[in-house]
Amino acid sequence: MADIYKAKEAAEAVYETIKHGVADWKRQGITPRIATLLVEGDPASAYYAEAKRKTAGKLGISFELHSFKADVSEAELLQCISRLNENPDVHGIMLELPLPKHLNPGTIEAAIAPTKDVDGVTPANKLATVTGAAGLYPATPQACIKLVKHYGHKLEGVNVTLVGCGRTVGLPLFHLLQREHATVTVCHAYTPDLTPHLKQAAISFVAVGNPGTVTKEMVHPGLVLIDAGINETADGSIVGDVAADAGQHAAAYSPVPGGVGTLTTAVLFENLLKAIQLQTERNVNYEYAHFV
Amino acid sequence: MADIYKAKEAAEAVYETIKHGVADWKRQGITPRIATLLVEGDPASAYYAEAKRKTAGKLGISFELHSFKADVSEAELLQCISRLNENPDVHGIMLELPLPKHLNPGTIEAAIAPTKDVDGVTPANKLATVTGAAGLYPATPQACIKLVKHYGHKLEGVNVTLVGCGRTVGLPLFHLLQREHATVTVCHAYTPDLTPHLKQAAISFVAVGNPGTVTKEMVHPGLVLIDAGINETADGSIVGDVAADAGQHAAAYSPVPGGVGTLTTAVLFENLLKAIQLQTERNVNYEYAHFV
Repeated sequence: MADIYKAKEAAEAVYETIKHGVADWKRQGITPRIATLLVEGDPASAYYAEAKRKTAGKLGISFELHSFKADVSEAELLQCISRLNENPDVHGIMLELPLPKHLNPGTIEAAIAPTKDVDGVTPANKLATVTGAAGLYPATPQACIKLVKHYGHKLEGVNVTLVGCGRTVGLPLFHLLQREHATVTVCHAYTPDLTPHLKQAAISFVAVGNPGTVTKEMVHPGLVLIDAGINETADGSIVGDVAADAGQHAAAYSPVPGGVGTLTTAVLFENLLKAIQLQTERNVNYEYAHFV
Repeated sequence: MADIYKAKEAAEAVYETIKHGVADWKRQGITPRIATLLVEGDPASAYYAEAKRKTAGKLGISFELHSFKADVSEAELLQCISRLNENPDVHGIMLELPLPKHLNPGTIEAAIAPTKDVDGVTPANKLATVTGAAGLYPATPQACIKLVKHYGHKLEGVNVTLVGCGRTVGLPLFHLLQREHATVTVCHAYTPDLTPHLKQAAISFVAVGNPGTVTKEMVHPGLVLIDAGINETADGSIVGDVAADAGQHAAAYSPVPGGVGTLTTAVLFENLLKAIQLQTERNVNYEYAHFV
């Protein structure tokens, strides 16, 4: 039987560190504060925003929700972001996705001040994720790496197979893994057979957004298999990208839910503290400061 | 014996296309013009700048060299770039590297207008290379892909092993290969043994900057091996990263000199025509237009 890598323990360790960080900032007269923009219409988004509010509360972090009707204009959202960018009491800004079809998420995300961009979605932070420059990196890829490290795995010189190379998880994760000096193979929809690539991997991260992408035939008994997929089934339950009977054939397996996603929320708030640090530094050390 | 993939033929095809493009622009009253900044002190840089001047001449492209003493200040270089950025008659701007130690190439490169950045070194173009947005991508990675396509190889769904992941060649090449839908494995100095990764590859690009990185024991008879390394030996000759006796054990081998480098110069001038296109378009379709 495979070891089960749940993220609760790792997340709790992160939350402990965050609580200390929050207390430190409060002693300096700064109450960490995060804002999220929610456009009505997607029940899951509303649920996630509410979950963040609760977690923020437990951590002593102020939270403000900016809720908009489904027909909100781009201009109205940009105006709200502009106000939040300029408000020194707000340290982190998030935009809940998906948005209604008349809104372009890229345009709206790009308006967020990079030093408040705790989701790492602005161009400046995307580039920082690629180059390793100072900045705020997306939370899910960071959570993936934190999880395997929590369980004592090294990445340097290790064969890692990434299944999925999307902009949100796979591609930024590739860059983080590069800087951990893993030897990374990136598979995707055009890879004719995942099996040889998973067979040669010591660690594999799966982030495709398609249930059952990794089957038991692809898994070998020495593999550490981290499922970073989140899919909603017809009955409303959440499943990952790894088939239900596949994980047990690996050496270790991180399930969905209860795995990477659990740690992602913790990393998001870790990013908030990093954001405050960036905002209070006199010379923000963005590699491309003129972008900021 | 391996097929030898020289780039001369592929380069000549590109040059023919460029000549037609130049003629088209001239008919519209635009003479393509490229400028390069050269700081004295590196004989190889001066040689490359002169080679570009000659090639530009053959293509009907105007060329201007801005030469600076070795103790030139950053401000003076930035001022020159600013003038070139604003001059509508100059369509491409290059900075010859390496620079003397008192100058930071990143700062100076970032000052180039992205639509004139034919070497693809500005932050906006680096990000465009990652995301696939409109922009000017670096020439050497483009030349690598053009070379294997010229010889009839497909990349979609093919196992490609990249040896080297530097910022100039390896990393941008990874992104271009991703968008060609290759399954890419990225090896580097921390990869304990290149052999298994080269054995499973149909095509391999090597861009490390270290002679003899790939030896004959690593090569298999079905491999298409593209050497993109450029190293100067003690006697002043130019060699690649693949050992002299290794290429012959592959199915096909692209040598140095005469391979990727030959095609890179052609791609650079292809970028110049693309740059003019970007400059003349009313709405430059950079994904992150506010960066430009």
